[in-house]
Amino acid sequence: MRSSVYFYPTLKETPQEAQIVSHRLMLRSGMISQVTAGIYTWLPSGLKVLNKIAQIIRQEQDRAQSLEVLMPTIQPAALWEKSGRYHIYGKEMLRMVDRHEREMLYGPTAEEVITDIFSRFVKSYKDLPKRFYNIQWKFRDEIRPRFGIMRGREFLMKDNYSFDLTVEGAKASYQAMLEAYVRTFARMDLTAIPVRAATGPIGGDLSHEFQILAETGESEIFYDAAYETLDVNTITLERLQTLYAAADELHDPQTCPVPADQLRTARGIEVGHVFYFGTKYSIPLGAYVTGPDGKQVPVEMGSYGIGVSRLVGAIIEAHHDDKGIIWPESVAPFKVGLLNLNIKDKACTEMCEDLYQKLLQAKIETLYDDRDMGIGAKFADMDLIGLPWQIIVGPRSVTTGQCELKNRRTGEKIEISLEDVLKRMCYCG
Amino acid sequence: MRSSVYFYPTLKETPQEAQIVSHRLMLRSGMISQVTAGIYTWLPSGLKVLNKIAQIIRQEQDRAQSLEVLMPTIQPAALWEKSGRYHIYGKEMLRMVDRHEREMLYGPTAEEVITDIFSRFVKSYKDLPKRFYNIQWKFRDEIRPRFGIMRGREFLMKDNYSFDLTVEGAKASYQAMLEAYVRTFARMDLTAIPVRAATGPIGGDLSHEFQILAETGESEIFYDAAYETLDVNTITLERLQTLYAAADELHDPQTCPVPADQLRTARGIEVGHVFYFGTKYSIPLGAYVTGPDGKQVPVEMGSYGIGVSRLVGAIIEAHHDDKGIIWPESVAPFKVGLLNLNIKDKACTEMCEDLYQKLLQAKIETLYDDRDMGIGAKFADMDLIGLPWQIIVGPRSVTTGQCELKNRRTGEKIEISLEDVLKRMCYCG
Repeated sequence: MRSSVYFYPTLKETPQEAQIVSHRLMLRSGMISQVTAGIYTWLPSGLKVLNKIAQIIRQEQDRAQSLEVLMPTIQPAALWEKSGRYHIYGKEMLRMVDRHEREMLYGPTAEEVITDIFSRFVKSYKDLPKRFYNIQWKFRDEIRPRFGIMRGREFLMKDNYSFDLTVEGAKASYQAMLEAYVRTFARMDLTAIPVRAATGPIGGDLSHEFQILAETGESEIFYDAAYETLDVNTITLERLQTLYAAADELHDPQTCPVPADQLRTARGIEVGHVFYFGTKYSIPLGAYVTGPDGKQVPVEMGSYGIGVSRLVGAIIEAHHDDKGIIWPESVAPFKVGLLNLNIKDKACTEMCEDLYQKLLQAKIETLYDDRDMGIGAKFADMDLIGLPWQIIVGPRSVTTGQCELKNRRTGEKIEISLEDVLKRMCYCG
Repeated sequence: MRSSVYFYPTLKETPQEAQIVSHRLMLRSGMISQVTAGIYTWLPSGLKVLNKIAQIIRQEQDRAQSLEVLMPTIQPAALWEKSGRYHIYGKEMLRMVDRHEREMLYGPTAEEVITDIFSRFVKSYKDLPKRFYNIQWKFRDEIRPRFGIMRGREFLMKDNYSFDLTVEGAKASYQAMLEAYVRTFARMDLTAIPVRAATGPIGGDLSHEFQILAETGESEIFYDAAYETLDVNTITLERLQTLYAAADELHDPQTCPVPADQLRTARGIEVGHVFYFGTKYSIPLGAYVTGPDGKQVPVEMGSYGIGVSRLVGAIIEAHHDDKGIIWPESVAPFKVGLLNLNIKDKACTEMCEDLYQKLLQAKIETLYDDRDMGIGAKFADMDLIGLPWQIIVGPRSVTTGQCELKNRRTGEKIEISLEDVLKRMCYCG
């Protein structure tokens, strides 16, 4: 994509309203634009990141034997009356009446809708387990929306719902989702700590919050150092239930079972929440199956959320410096930024155009800064938007055949031939 | 995907409420499930089709130099008060107040939001033309929702908005979008006729509805036979403005300029609508740029919609028979249905498993019907869900090494070796 036709309106100044770094950097790099309090339009580069994050989540949900569906944003109040949540859910629920005076709401979550579908179509234990997820916009009418898309009102969420015959089955689904989450966040270069949590309005018996580590995180967490080397091959539900991790308000140094030299503390940002809640929804919504003995059994359920739009901010909180964003390659809007240092120099521009075409042919996502503006502003913009690699071509490149390759994360710069830089971009990352 | 773990709850009986063939077939093939009047959940196979249609639209929008953004579903009433449409738009607009008593609405379209963004960031004619689109859920509170997702209340729409300095520029954008639409619909095996239309609540000077031909279409249209051979290389705005096409209510045989032997009539379904409306929104919303002479000029705009979810139904209306859906390969949920005629026959099942693995390795989207049920029901289900190709493997295949390959559209069946069927699936379509 050429910068001259793309649309990423960068800002030099920090917008007044932005209190946290991800909000500042998303506004400054032209990823989002506010429509009204807590409601945003995703501009082209922001949307690319959002879609890449959603795609990683989708792949890991599919790998965990889950089927993707898409539930509507607007739900009838009648379903929520069945579950008993309609009057419990407070002012965070956006409510409305339609032209026929029926009460409706913008879904903050979808336990009722999916359980209702399940109850209509699944009749036998032979069809279990079933896990359904969707990636859909949700609305929570926060009293004071802030921090950009980190605490917005309209937000994108992945929500998965599992249906099992037995408690053991439900625990296996819970376990599968924990594994999927560890994989998902690792693919975004995030360290995620599953913290035992209160179940809140979803209800139920067992719940973990996934906190990702970031210096600028919203809350303090305490955890066993073993988490830092946690991998998907060793994690089990049993292990997670014995490994210590606690939010600030629940951590008590007196009773903490982890020796001091093994205890870590860091700032965390909540990006996911998983619940096992048994038959809380299946009984009121009539989700029963015929068991092996021919009797009707209410299914055992869990639900598993990831804040997809929130993750965009969380990744920036975890990956930035004072110049701007440093995107992990898996979610970067483009892999490469190609800087033409003098578009008025014909030979330099021909060289850039040639390299740009070759990068496109090699299917390397490239933002080619072909704008007619000062070098300083170009460098600043490129650091701000945070693409993993910068290829810098100037008039000197025409004589030397060399360009400069900069790694945004490390800041390392090397001189490299144009042929080699192309090869390297094809194989690295 | 294995049928035994997938989720496509097929129905033998036709649901009472479904009056048109696409609604019947979508319910019977388990693509959608109604949540409440005019609001649906997309089940796995329905969502796959919806996403494939969206992806074709996206590719053709990108090719037409448009940038994808994502606007929110909930918009502030204040923006619509600026354009003057808030009080004009009737009961089809779903309105609500948030917890701070601010009036909000679920966007039925997004001229106001995008024009507001444009006005904030684009300041010079040098940045024009700009074309932004998004594929987002919309809501129109239809008084009598019916026909399934063909006239639902929550529906997926692609809406593109063009911004140009001059009327000629705006016409070029309009032209680019007409070309994109012809390409888009052709890729879904649809014949689309752009019919001159009234502009309605969007307003403006020039407008075309895109009608696709289907025997079961909702309205009758009359058109020049030249449309049937229309291709993207010959279509121009001038030609479209001279070529005759009219909806039933506007067609007058007395004044029709097309000779009788050159006039065609058919049933049509509206799937897109394009508008040129000049400065109707740019002036009230302050979308001005500095022109080449240094003066402030309101930008010339157009908007261009495609009913993405509606297209799912429209394609079925155009492509079905009395046994079920006949998906065009470009939008089919799977390319191949593999039928195991006797899963209890060990050798037959091994053969199927082997072929299934090879199809997956070749990245051919395959639904493997590995369910333990009668052959008749399996054949009926496979015809109903309408995958382009059926590979039928039975116990006899074990001795002959041959399977049956059925083309769903033509009904043609051939005996073919298992090696050859794999090769053929890799190269055909």
